[in-house]
Amino acid sequence: MATEVKIGLPKGSLQEATFDLFRRAVFHGRVSSRSYFPTINDPELQAIMFRAQEMSRYVEDGVIDMGLTGKDWICENNSDVIEVCELVYSKATAKPASWVLAVPNESDAQKAQDLGGGIIATELVNVTKKYFANKGIDVKVEFSWGATEVKARLLGGIVEITETGSSLRANNLRIIDTVMTSTTRLIANKNAWNDKNKREKIEAIALLLRGAIEGREKVGLKMNIPSDKLSDVLALLPAEKSPTISSLADKKFMALEVVMEEQAARDLVPKLKRHGASGIFTYSLNQVIP
Amino acid sequence: MATEVKIGLPKGSLQEATFDLFRRAVFHGRVSSRSYFPTINDPELQAIMFRAQEMSRYVEDGVIDMGLTGKDWICENNSDVIEVCELVYSKATAKPASWVLAVPNESDAQKAQDLGGGIIATELVNVTKKYFANKGIDVKVEFSWGATEVKARLLGGIVEITETGSSLRANNLRIIDTVMTSTTRLIANKNAWNDKNKREKIEAIALLLRGAIEGREKVGLKMNIPSDKLSDVLALLPAEKSPTISSLADKKFMALEVVMEEQAARDLVPKLKRHGASGIFTYSLNQVIP
Amino acid sequence: MATEVKIGLPKGSLQEATFDLFRRAVFHGRVSSRSYFPTINDPELQAIMFRAQEMSRYVEDGVIDMGLTGKDWICENNSDVIEVCELVYSKATAKPASWVLAVPNESDAQKAQDLGGGIIATELVNVTKKYFANKGIDVKVEFSWGATEVKARLLGGIVEITETGSSLRANNLRIIDTVMTSTTRLIANKNAWNDKNKREKIEAIALLLRGAIEGREKVGLKMNIPSDKLSDVLALLPAEKSPTISSLADKKFMALEVVMEEQAARDLVPKLKRHGASGIFTYSLNQVIP
Amino acid sequence: MATEVKIGLPKGSLQEATFDLFRRAVFHGRVSSRSYFPTINDPELQAIMFRAQEMSRYVEDGVIDMGLTGKDWICENNSDVIEVCELVYSKATAKPASWVLAVPNESDAQKAQDLGGGIIATELVNVTKKYFANKGIDVKVEFSWGATEVKARLLGGIVEITETGSSLRANNLRIIDTVMTSTTRLIANKNAWNDKNKREKIEAIALLLRGAIEGREKVGLKMNIPSDKLSDVLALLPAEKSPTISSLADKKFMALEVVMEEQAARDLVPKLKRHGASGIFTYSLNQVIP
Amino acid sequence: MATEVKIGLPKGSLQEATFDLFRRAVFHGRVSSRSYFPTINDPELQAIMFRAQEMSRYVEDGVIDMGLTGKDWICENNSDVIEVCELVYSKATAKPASWVLAVPNESDAQKAQDLGGGIIATELVNVTKKYFANKGIDVKVEFSWGATEVKARLLGGIVEITETGSSLRANNLRIIDTVMTSTTRLIANKNAWNDKNKREKIEAIALLLRGAIEGREKVGLKMNIPSDKLSDVLALLPAEKSPTISSLADKKFMALEVVMEEQAARDLVPKLKRHGASGIFTYSLNQVIP
Amino acid sequence: MATEVKIGLPKGSLQEATFDLFRRAVFHGRVSSRSYFPTINDPELQAIMFRAQEMSRYVEDGVIDMGLTGKDWICENNSDVIEVCELVYSKATAKPASWVLAVPNESDAQKAQDLGGGIIATELVNVTKKYFANKGIDVKVEFSWGATEVKARLLGGIVEITETGSSLRANNLRIIDTVMTSTTRLIANKNAWNDKNKREKIEAIALLLRGAIEGREKVGLKMNIPSDKLSDVLALLPAEKSPTISSLADKKFMALEVVMEEQAARDLVPKLKRHGASGIFTYSLNQVIP
Repeated sequence: MATEVKIGLPKGSLQEATFDLFRRAVFHGRVSSRSYFPTINDPELQAIMFRAQEMSRYVEDGVIDMGLTGKDWICENNSDVIEVCELVYSKATAKPASWVLAVPNESDAQKAQDLGGGIIATELVNVTKKYFANKGIDVKVEFSWGATEVKARLLGGIVEITETGSSLRANNLRIIDTVMTSTTRLIANKNAWNDKNKREKIEAIALLLRGAIEGREKVGLKMNIPSDKLSDVLALLPAEKSPTISSLADKKFMALEVVMEEQAARDLVPKLKRHGASGIFTYSLNQVIP
Repeated sequence: MATEVKIGLPKGSLQEATFDLFRRAVFHGRVSSRSYFPTINDPELQAIMFRAQEMSRYVEDGVIDMGLTGKDWICENNSDVIEVCELVYSKATAKPASWVLAVPNESDAQKAQDLGGGIIATELVNVTKKYFANKGIDVKVEFSWGATEVKARLLGGIVEITETGSSLRANNLRIIDTVMTSTTRLIANKNAWNDKNKREKIEAIALLLRGAIEGREKVGLKMNIPSDKLSDVLALLPAEKSPTISSLADKKFMALEVVMEEQAARDLVPKLKRHGASGIFTYSLNQVIP
Repeated sequence: MATEVKIGLPKGSLQEATFDLFRRAVFHGRVSSRSYFPTINDPELQAIMFRAQEMSRYVEDGVIDMGLTGKDWICENNSDVIEVCELVYSKATAKPASWVLAVPNESDAQKAQDLGGGIIATELVNVTKKYFANKGIDVKVEFSWGATEVKARLLGGIVEITETGSSLRANNLRIIDTVMTSTTRLIANKNAWNDKNKREKIEAIALLLRGAIEGREKVGLKMNIPSDKLSDVLALLPAEKSPTISSLADKKFMALEVVMEEQAARDLVPKLKRHGASGIFTYSLNQVIP
Repeated sequence: MATEVKIGLPKGSLQEATFDLFRRAVFHGRVSSRSYFPTINDPELQAIMFRAQEMSRYVEDGVIDMGLTGKDWICENNSDVIEVCELVYSKATAKPASWVLAVPNESDAQKAQDLGGGIIATELVNVTKKYFANKGIDVKVEFSWGATEVKARLLGGIVEITETGSSLRANNLRIIDTVMTSTTRLIANKNAWNDKNKREKIEAIALLLRGAIEGREKVGLKMNIPSDKLSDVLALLPAEKSPTISSLADKKFMALEVVMEEQAARDLVPKLKRHGASGIFTYSLNQVIP
Repeated sequence: MATEVKIGLPKGSLQEATFDLFRRAVFHGRVSSRSYFPTINDPELQAIMFRAQEMSRYVEDGVIDMGLTGKDWICENNSDVIEVCELVYSKATAKPASWVLAVPNESDAQKAQDLGGGIIATELVNVTKKYFANKGIDVKVEFSWGATEVKARLLGGIVEITETGSSLRANNLRIIDTVMTSTTRLIANKNAWNDKNKREKIEAIALLLRGAIEGREKVGLKMNIPSDKLSDVLALLPAEKSPTISSLADKKFMALEVVMEEQAARDLVPKLKRHGASGIFTYSLNQVIP
Repeated sequence: MATEVKIGLPKGSLQEATFDLFRRAVFHGRVSSRSYFPTINDPELQAIMFRAQEMSRYVEDGVIDMGLTGKDWICENNSDVIEVCELVYSKATAKPASWVLAVPNESDAQKAQDLGGGIIATELVNVTKKYFANKGIDVKVEFSWGATEVKARLLGGIVEITETGSSLRANNLRIIDTVMTSTTRLIANKNAWNDKNKREKIEAIALLLRGAIEGREKVGLKMNIPSDKLSDVLALLPAEKSPTISSLADKKFMALEVVMEEQAARDLVPKLKRHGASGIFTYSLNQVIP
């Protein structure tokens, strides 16, 4: 009988991006607006939506076999799980999300020590407590139900997540330290990982998802090249790329196909045209297996 | 002069999926939010939006030459039309829609006979009447304007459409029989079908739409293979697939390209990598002509 | 150090289509809902959103190096800028936008001269003034803040933009002349154009954007052909297309790949099948470099 | 034990106005977005939402004791019910809704007879059939699922509901006859009407609802008047109104309070001020019992 | 100098109702969509929005002087604050909100004891722990981030808030016990309550808010009565009501005005009319000071 | 025959508040979502929606007889119209809107003179030109199509409208001068004003609208007072208010009714209760005629 693996997908801000990733990894999923059980077209895979904040707890408990969540919440929950791989959804910003210690612009505080004896509001209570304890600073850390930036003014300091810091600046807050940085991880339950069949399935999913991430950043580029210009054109390509060169019926031309980073393709295309390539076109990829 | 064919497209829940299908079949259409006449970039094709419920009547009357609608409404309207082909939009659920006879959970009824002498509310009046008549059960069948599940409680029984039954269960209803199952059909008017030019156009559209449906379920898969591993890799492929194998400039490698089901690709990719394939990538298809 | 080029993108009705175009041209951009500074993943390119109406002024002043706007607003602002190329976003309608002189259906006016002595409401004040001056007609031209069609009734005549005329007809207005037609242009500041590095960047962007427009209208078409049917199949292809023909491992077949207009592919596919082609499929392209 | 009366409220376009009416009639109701059973703060009243189209059928069958629906649907369903009273929700337009026979502007038809032998699409099938039968005109009347104006062009004629005709004109349709006019009615089941307790409750509800309608069109108007100007001011009031005149502690002034039509108050206020009234103010009413 | 009192208002589901209450209590407030600091037109009052869950903590800490929150969250936070008064926003449902222990319909559990040894998910962790501890039942209580009903299935039991139980039933859950009931409270900080000026302001606000709640449930009722029928009519009024009876200029009539419960007015109006009252009308009140 | 007056109402941000004002002034209006011609239930009044920016031009030209617009746009258009009265919609903020000269926080500019030689972007071109001309400062003033705050950074300075300055601060802009302040005005065409009938109608509308504005800020306050406490209670009332005191059937009490500012009522109510008033309640007013 087939192995069935239960996977937890993050509800909320990452939800849309996660479904896009699964589509590229050829797991077409459908989630009706109020359901917590998306349908995925793989009979061996059953998906459940959870908030990223609680995912690692359910993986640890074995309620699910594997899940997608942030490093931050794995630490916050202090969960004993296998980290199968990192999954950097977006290279656009290149920067991972950070939990930062922030104070109002008008505050005198310049470093964590200056907040000693005060109250810190955050959603990431345990990580924040450990951060202050490691520095030997005595503060009271309180869980905050949203609107954390308002509390920065009321209490003196907050620990809040940010990608670019722009939302903090818009609230006239100033970052004085970084508590932790975090990226998305694929995690697995320990027992599932020790089950040969489940582990094979988990690794296959990891491979396909990593391929989907690669696929998003790359394009396929095709062109015809006069046979006598081939070496010129090959010299333009990034050294580490091995293009597929096919012989054509018309021996005066060769067909060249190469998969490369979008940004590199952008710079290359005008040069290829100047060096005699014709019939140049680009197309999108789903996955590029690493 | 060019033949002009009038096609009816279903307004409502299938609308979005239908336009996506036409886009893949390279008939780019545009429908402004309030218009019933979408623009399609084929001068030989004029489109009109109708509710699926009434489509077959307009095809039968010759108001339009062809249309997309459900088998259920063709039966309900008892329309005398040509069924050109079935078009299964989505293999995700695999199950066709069903019209089921349902009663409240708390009802004593266990089979259709137990409703004899009562009232049945449904949108599919004629099919339902025939269903009960065939069983020799005497019921009054009434047309229902929505909120049918409320009426199940007031009246005792309903005949309602469902894909998975989940909406019925959420309303505490219980299915006691299936009245009919239904899938989408491409239908044509009899006179249009007997007109040589129109029929050729209708068949071309059917071919392209079926290709678009195939295209949605499949991906292109490409890789390079060491020449001496070719037979190993070919053995991994589904028997019925004939891959395109190109010779490369570098004779130590062959390029292999194959079009296959997404789900099969998903299982195959990890194996290919283990057998020495490199540069593996997948890409989306618009149409795969059957 | 790298050249940095500032580009103005049109805010409003063209915004969505512009971002789609940039995506195809492999400049992935992200614009947060309230920002005027979209992030584009090219370190040499900084984007700013402006209304199309004012774009050419900011290009002329050198606030930005290049921008996308309509011919109409270049004329209205009488801006002294370089027109790098035309960018026809959509071949769907094929018709460029027109600014037309329109009157209520019930008006007696049949030509521009019949409006002499009256008031004309328009957003395109200067072009409209010049149009009437060239004809020697004395009218008062007033700037209109929207709802121009209401003013046609109150004042007698308007000059309004239209693509198909349908919105005018729906308001019971009648077109009596065309004041100007307009398409989108890529424009550059004169100093930027004379700077060798900036010009090279501007031309590269123009090439990639034109490729993206081409890519939107075309598809890749692939098939296998029995070697002895090759000349038959080639005869079906449009004369100006040069397909890529690859030899296959199995010498009884050739692989043929060709990039062509979507609409031509639609007509061609049924014929190809009848002439023995197999494994026919189509896929989408991002760019086709002209 | 208390009598319990079941009342049907119309779902859809009248829903908002109906709840407003009940609020004024001091039956505060709450309907959650997906529920069909609004909560009304009267233990003797249980409300159910139905489409206006089917209301009279459920009243006739005794599923509910009373309901609000249009005269049109009572006729269409040919329901044997008590019409307790008319409830004209809105005097703003003053005109009742009409079901009209309409044809495309470009049609040659000028009267019902010109459509003989054709097809008529309508939601009001039985009334329409009777209309044509009474005139001895032979037409086929078909039920239409929305988009009726599109069908006017396809078939030749429709019977459609309209308040002002503006939507028909916007679709370039022309009214050639009125099939019936219709206003909202409060209807009751015959058995409920013959039950003394239920009838008393139904009549009390009718009185309160009619009071709520009156209350919406009227305002309370208060002022102080110098005692010697009283007769002058009284002469300004509509003859049929009997104001409440109170003596004040300060005998030089009288207090006058009158309930009147909003529009009459609008004209009266400036005159009252000119005739020496002071401290004039107006306030809203919930109900004015007729 | 004027006293300034800081008041915390609940963000989220009670927000709209709270602002309506303040409007009736003649504190017109404005909150822009993204602000946490609503503007209230009383220079002595500064408002801040908080989630109900955390309000009592901020009142206890003295960050704010007073606040509106539920009894449930006062208990959960174990906050040492003054409960100034209860504020029952809505008498419509009459039932306070309850936190209930619920299990899946299909569970065997019939009482709290049956869940011993299991896991309970809830947002109200401390109250729930105390509830089980008091009963001597050993369970693990875990904080739940929403979607609690899904967890009922995964874990076995939840403690969730409900007003009518309908949302639980819709999820096929069954209530087996009530953990606590809760209504809204106006709470104050202890130091603020001991400050004479602040306490006077807090009590004035409490009086006005209670008046606003009273005002929402009552209507003003006015009528004219023939002087000789006065005692008959007075006998119809609830005993505890003291109507205002004014003498009119026309001595044959008296004016009677009384403030009463909406529901009582509803029953009274038809009787008044039968007993000779004329010119009966009702109007809304803002506040009725208790 | 009745006089018909054409009135222009401002489309856009003031639209909702304007319709609310007309409702209080007992001109119930209805505007369908796409119409520019709202229906108002006064046969002597025909309404048209215009942008506030162009209103005064159409009043001056006589296209409409009267209109509501801002003082700013009357000046910008330099329109020769009658200003009938000021209409301060909202006393909540108390401050009129201002057009201010603003620069980026980081700019060195401290006063208008520091911007000499630069470019100023604004929607209020003519007023801004006059402002700089009066100060003898040479700047180029350009019309800005929105996003003016972005242009402050690009160009150096803007003239922008603001109520509280908060949106400017949020964009990190600093106000260095006020160019003009502006409130809403009711304006009339000169010829209409000289027409006796039209002027009477315009003045009546002005009276009713001003009454509606007064009505919004005030409440009615009613109570019963022991006859021997009357003078005590009267002493609590603002000196300029003349309450209506009615004798009651029960001579031991007097009824007192007074119309006053909401904020004054708020402070008064607790004192009244302490001085023996009973049956205190407040209610809303539509209009208080000044």
